[in-house]
Amino acid sequence: MRTSLDCLPCIVRQAADASRMVTDDDGVVLEIMKIVFDRLARADLSVTPPEIVRAVHAVIRRELHDADPFLSIKRKSTQRALDIAASAREAIRNAGNPFAAALAFSIAGNILDFGMRSEWNEAIITDSFSKALERSTAFDAEALARLRDEIAAADTVLVLGDNAGEAVFDRLLIEHFPRRKNVHYAVKASPVINDATWEDAAAAGIDEVAAIVSNGADIPGTVLWECSAEFQRIFHAADVVISKGQGNFETLNEDPRKIWFLFQVKCPVIANHYSFSVGDWMLLEKNGSCNEQDGLHSS
Amino acid sequence: MRTSLDCLPCIVRQAADASRMVTDDDGVVLEIMKIVFDRLARADLSVTPPEIVRAVHAVIRRELHDADPFLSIKRKSTQRALDIAASAREAIRNAGNPFAAALAFSIAGNILDFGMRSEWNEAIITDSFSKALERSTAFDAEALARLRDEIAAADTVLVLGDNAGEAVFDRLLIEHFPRRKNVHYAVKASPVINDATWEDAAAAGIDEVAAIVSNGADIPGTVLWECSAEFQRIFHAADVVISKGQGNFETLNEDPRKIWFLFQVKCPVIANHYSFSVGDWMLLEKNGSCNEQDGLHSS
Repeated sequence: MRTSLDCLPCIVRQAADASRMVTDDDGVVLEIMKIVFDRLARADLSVTPPEIVRAVHAVIRRELHDADPFLSIKRKSTQRALDIAASAREAIRNAGNPFAAALAFSIAGNILDFGMRSEWNEAIITDSFSKALERSTAFDAEALARLRDEIAAADTVLVLGDNAGEAVFDRLLIEHFPRRKNVHYAVKASPVINDATWEDAAAAGIDEVAAIVSNGADIPGTVLWECSAEFQRIFHAADVVISKGQGNFETLNEDPRKIWFLFQVKCPVIANHYSFSVGDWMLLEKNGSCNEQDGLHSS
Repeated sequence: MRTSLDCLPCIVRQAADASRMVTDDDGVVLEIMKIVFDRLARADLSVTPPEIVRAVHAVIRRELHDADPFLSIKRKSTQRALDIAASAREAIRNAGNPFAAALAFSIAGNILDFGMRSEWNEAIITDSFSKALERSTAFDAEALARLRDEIAAADTVLVLGDNAGEAVFDRLLIEHFPRRKNVHYAVKASPVINDATWEDAAAAGIDEVAAIVSNGADIPGTVLWECSAEFQRIFHAADVVISKGQGNFETLNEDPRKIWFLFQVKCPVIANHYSFSVGDWMLLEKNGSCNEQDGLHSS
């Protein structure tokens, strides 16, 4: 999806928030913001939001001499996720439909996103995981069965990771894939916001259930022509692609291949654009190239 | 007050909203936004918010070749205000304290502000005026008496206007000043957002109760060194200065002279900074130069 005018204030706010994670000197941040504005003035604003966000965060990392401003919040996310995962694993095992429960916990984990909301909010995080079992019974049964069958029949599955911490629950989902198969888990090549890199995915234990693969880019989404040739080959060859998070949805929803999107709707612009509601948990089946809602089926 | 980092996303949103009042072509607005970003990259972000907003709106007026993008909403505001004023005038006359009631309707009128919220919201506007009589009984009695006494003793009063439409209720307030006196009503020299200009104040009937004077600037506030020498003379010579709206508060709250501020708190940044609450109706007495809350007494 193309960037909306309504995305711009949010991108500016995210830039200020990210800068404030590195320094508490508002005067320094104001100077950074002038450089951010200069970058935005020269940007192609007709691309997807994650591409603009990438450019803005690159300015912040460069100007504040901090290669990974979200490092501490990523580590905290992974630790918190590992703490929750023990009981989640138990709950999934005891659930009537363990695959659906694992899927729901994977979507619950998508709350560990510090782009739109840069501060840790324990209440919101706890609330997300407490809903997982209940939400696991609310998926569209046919879509759920289709996804399960497609994975069962697949030789290769590609999971497009989103946030650090969230990867812990993606691991639980991969553990509950029907039949063992060749699974790739894609991460960002280098830090951007709190998106999972190789290190973050490994800290979540993904390497025990999948081959971690860098997509070759530092965009908080998946823009194929910016990704490595190796990643593009894996993407096109995969029998099933499961995409986590809004950033991947924003950058892949018009791609011609079939993709399953799993995410929480956090942004009113996306909600309005696609007739979702903020707070929705999406199990969304995209069958081909689509614009707006054509070919999208949510559950 | 200096611009806060938290003002920047709001200023960007206001720029997009104002541009959309002139054109419904989002592609055109995106190009305008790049010019706005370029302007912000070159701005001194350490000044007051209205000074930055002035620069942004100057870009929009220039690039969209529209000298007054808010003209139709200003006319609608004035018409709606004149419609309400008939019953307001009656309510003020029948009130236990007509001066307090007129003051409250003047603050109620401050809702006719299309900077922070660019769309007409009839429910919010109706709600503001429906509260006026009740709120008129909630002012701090001593502050109210002091303001009334100061006006009674004054030979010259300067009212710093804010929005078109709001001026209709400022007229009612001026009509209820104790004793006839020399009143100046200051307006902006040329259009900026929906701030009242000479034409807007005249359409509200201000010229029947006060001398309308341009402050010589196009800032949605009052930055003295940007104002005309004539306006500065009137400002310093006035026995009483009554300042309407947040923009005038943001630009004059650190001025050394005594000023009475009347406004509705609409912005969370100002609310947090000064320990107000969004939605507060302010009758605020500033006795001298002040920073933060020193010397501010609200009612």
